[in-house]
Amino acid sequence: MRATLQTLEQTIAERRKADPSASYVAKLTARGRGKIAQKVGEEAVEAVIAAMADNRAELVGESADLLFHLLVLLADCGIPFDDVLDELDRREGLSGIAEKAARPKD
Amino acid sequence: MRATLQTLEQTIAERRKADPSASYVAKLTARGRGKIAQKVGEEAVEAVIAAMADNRAELVGESADLLFHLLVLLADCGIPFDDVLDELDRREGLSGIAEKAARPKD
Amino acid sequence: MRATLQTLEQTIAERRKADPSASYVAKLTARGRGKIAQKVGEEAVEAVIAAMADNRAELVGESADLLFHLLVLLADCGIPFDDVLDELDRREGLSGIAEKAARPKD
Amino acid sequence: MRATLQTLEQTIAERRKADPSASYVAKLTARGRGKIAQKVGEEAVEAVIAAMADNRAELVGESADLLFHLLVLLADCGIPFDDVLDELDRREGLSGIAEKAARPKD
Repeated sequence: MRATLQTLEQTIAERRKADPSASYVAKLTARGRGKIAQKVGEEAVEAVIAAMADNRAELVGESADLLFHLLVLLADCGIPFDDVLDELDRREGLSGIAEKAARPKD
Repeated sequence: MRATLQTLEQTIAERRKADPSASYVAKLTARGRGKIAQKVGEEAVEAVIAAMADNRAELVGESADLLFHLLVLLADCGIPFDDVLDELDRREGLSGIAEKAARPKD
Repeated sequence: MRATLQTLEQTIAERRKADPSASYVAKLTARGRGKIAQKVGEEAVEAVIAAMADNRAELVGESADLLFHLLVLLADCGIPFDDVLDELDRREGLSGIAEKAARPKD
Repeated sequence: MRATLQTLEQTIAERRKADPSASYVAKLTARGRGKIAQKVGEEAVEAVIAAMADNRAELVGESADLLFHLLVLLADCGIPFDDVLDELDRREGLSGIAEKAARPKD
């Protein structure tokens, strides 16, 4: 059980209140939700490209970037990361047979 | 310390070997890396749109979808999720002053 | 000089007023701007993946899908496609030396 | 009938052979297909965000950026823009009734 993401969530919450000239999180937050959301989309695109290029080191880095900016976006929307984990737990509580039925989009 | 993502990583590893007719993970994996990567990109776009529409319930669901498919993609590339957490730990080990300098892209 | 995109823009304008049960454009439009924007993002992701997989036939199809949905999105925002072409003409009117300077983001 | 995109396609073809220090197109092309594809994905994300924010001026600019980089990507894959227009013409040649059936993905 690693606390990496929970610790990062707390760090982001603190940095949001910091001086934008001293903190990347504060600076990005000050630019508005559109800029934070843009970073989430961009990092996802970079992860997609790294995976297609089979560049493992780059995929690790882009996945870290994606998770980081997703946490910044959730913080900006006032959503605790636990809410996302709760949703994942809820879905996985569904039986294996129900797995597919629970994903009507695919 | 919640084990949600680690448990999900194990579940995905098992389901990758399952019958594609019974498991969404097995079915998606059988369609190839391009289709898995496509889902990561699509869920990120949906998270971006939910955030811009300030639809919190939808952002929770899309974030869960995004994390789920990112884990499926990492599994397909043979990358342990711990490698991504290691990278996040490494970055956060950098001092606050170094935070910005460590992100040359922005 | 082909009129493909201009003709398509007119067709989309007409179909927006059609019965959603008979027209894809009307149906998508009825679902709201978020769903139209989502399609633009998804088709771009698919074009990216086709390009990375060096699948030329798929890239042609996804590029067509991307242009189509971009025109639907512009229509939904009340923006004539000519405004986008004007912007491209304006940029290309800049000299070759100015080309790079005009793109501060990169 | 405007020649903007056809002219731009020719300009891009010429600039691909230029000195990367003098031309954005040559410089981006030298960085490889992954970087070109990344720009297409990023500009699409920015167009999505501009549309959701109802920022018309920004959507015009991002749409121009998206078209520009899509043409750079097509050039890198050796695909004439006419092939994409042919595909759009082919689809629109289908009757209105067939419109929906021709889009099995939705």
